[in-house]
Amino acid sequence: MIEDKNPQRTQLSDLGEFGLIDHLTKNFKITKSSTVKGIGDDAAVLNFENKQVVVTTDLLIEGVHFDLSYMPLKHLGYKAVIVNLSDVYAMNAVATQVTISIAVSNRFPLEALEDLYAGIETAASIYNIDVVGGDTTSSNKGLLISVTAIGEVAADDVVYRSGAQPNDLLVVSGDLGAAYMGLQILEREKEVFKVNPNNQPDLEIYTYLIERQLKPEARKDIIKLLKDLDVKPTAMIDISDGLSSEIIHLCKQSQVGCDLYEAKIPLDPQVIAACEEFNIDSTTIALNGGEDYELLFTISQKDFPKIKANPSLTVIGFMKDASAGIDLVTRAETKIPIKAQGWKSITD
Amino acid sequence: MIEDKNPQRTQLSDLGEFGLIDHLTKNFKITKSSTVKGIGDDAAVLNFENKQVVVTTDLLIEGVHFDLSYMPLKHLGYKAVIVNLSDVYAMNAVATQVTISIAVSNRFPLEALEDLYAGIETAASIYNIDVVGGDTTSSNKGLLISVTAIGEVAADDVVYRSGAQPNDLLVVSGDLGAAYMGLQILEREKEVFKVNPNNQPDLEIYTYLIERQLKPEARKDIIKLLKDLDVKPTAMIDISDGLSSEIIHLCKQSQVGCDLYEAKIPLDPQVIAACEEFNIDSTTIALNGGEDYELLFTISQKDFPKIKANPSLTVIGFMKDASAGIDLVTRAETKIPIKAQGWKSITD
Repeated sequence: MIEDKNPQRTQLSDLGEFGLIDHLTKNFKITKSSTVKGIGDDAAVLNFENKQVVVTTDLLIEGVHFDLSYMPLKHLGYKAVIVNLSDVYAMNAVATQVTISIAVSNRFPLEALEDLYAGIETAASIYNIDVVGGDTTSSNKGLLISVTAIGEVAADDVVYRSGAQPNDLLVVSGDLGAAYMGLQILEREKEVFKVNPNNQPDLEIYTYLIERQLKPEARKDIIKLLKDLDVKPTAMIDISDGLSSEIIHLCKQSQVGCDLYEAKIPLDPQVIAACEEFNIDSTTIALNGGEDYELLFTISQKDFPKIKANPSLTVIGFMKDASAGIDLVTRAETKIPIKAQGWKSITD
Repeated sequence: MIEDKNPQRTQLSDLGEFGLIDHLTKNFKITKSSTVKGIGDDAAVLNFENKQVVVTTDLLIEGVHFDLSYMPLKHLGYKAVIVNLSDVYAMNAVATQVTISIAVSNRFPLEALEDLYAGIETAASIYNIDVVGGDTTSSNKGLLISVTAIGEVAADDVVYRSGAQPNDLLVVSGDLGAAYMGLQILEREKEVFKVNPNNQPDLEIYTYLIERQLKPEARKDIIKLLKDLDVKPTAMIDISDGLSSEIIHLCKQSQVGCDLYEAKIPLDPQVIAACEEFNIDSTTIALNGGEDYELLFTISQKDFPKIKANPSLTVIGFMKDASAGIDLVTRAETKIPIKAQGWKSITD
């Protein structure tokens, strides 16, 4: 569970600030035609020609957003990129570049930052983006990472949160709640480890949950799939805080209401099993657990035949007039108003 | 000296994350034609048509980059924007948008963040840029601000650090060392305050120094001036870490050498007086003091007549072959190799 202590430790101060940036970024390659100039000047220079540019940014802080006692630094670097790319895809755009700023206290040796950047490089390679800039500085406590992601999209293809219409269908990619249950498993094992450091936990049965927490993926594939299926969502958002708060964002910005069908919410069998083990209601977890980074979108009913056979997409609801409210339709066919309760409220 | 304690304190938890963002950003107006969509979706959407896009990012951390005991939050918000805009101007670009991410511990009431955002808004208004996104989260220690600035520039107008040629002239805007001496004054007054809180310091004679530290400006005016004078620098960088390290960056990336003339370095009379008072060599301060946010650039000799009469610009050196080295030519006409020693080295 606990991060390996690398036997070789190089003090950051041995390199100096400029040496550190050069060292950490020396493996990054520029592959996008839109990157004119990457790392190494006052700013990166990009060229999107006739495309629109999408920009989003996120801050990840040790002790708030991640716990290094079970989050390996390589995974953290990967995840820091992924959570930002997810926002780019949620605009129906293609991610092209990121900038990475980190602040580290001197408790981190160079080798730890190399692991972090290895994860960043892996994400950049898999998602085909360039790392074009950033900032490396010291912090007086812990590690923090600030990522800005940039993407491109044809003006006609942008999908906002605000375009949903009454009678549209509400669709979600993948399944929900696994990342949150993965966090519960990791937190529990951390407590067990504190009591008995020699205990070797068997986490085999939770593999999917832990992977969803430690190595989430952004749904670039869904953006491509929708294009291939010739479906342009009417509204879209990524699920970072939890299904309930994202539905409320979509409904408020689109000025519509929604019926969400409890029975339709896609859950992985491991989520159902873990919820039973922890004695938590799986619908509550799907609604309020965060960090799934799935895409939530609405489509016109005429597009339903194009998506209905696809195993990656599930219709979970139906958009209504705003006056009809935002409701969960339970398995017992009763309606309960959906409240905004992101995962931060759960864990705080 | 010490930040006013606002009698009204609103706990951040009273608003919730989404309420907080809405509250802090409600006064931000979108004025740039390149901003298609600002705050409020998964990402901002921008449109630069046939212009190239410039992107730069910086992280400011309490206790490392600023000290709230003498830095009012409004000034901090202003400065956080300015330091990033300075990097955009150093590409010979026009700044158009910023994103702002902040992390705050719960020791900050809402009113403190309102002050911070008032400074951000003032900078956005004066420099004519849009605030198009960001992230607000909690930190477990202190305040940190991450800013990403975006600008636009015609492909032919971009100026890199790498274009300087032997025989080019080295030019600097404004004067140097004042921000660093302002920091020395503020640090000294903080120590005096600790010993005698009733002491009313007379800081009148240091006004310029303190203003350069607490309310720096980015040289947008110089970019316009150069355009008006029809001068395109061959290379350019902004002076954030100190003249010596910026000269070394320019020389290394351009593969040239340089003679820097000590007698030509522009110093404000307040810098000279304060250096005498503190018994420090003013050339050392000009070379190694940071945060002046002036522009350092090289021009072809043929452009010298266009700039020579301008009080905002000073020719301070002469570019040579790389083999000739990077030297300070002292008032005594001796040559001393210039070493990279940014302001971080001084204050650490």
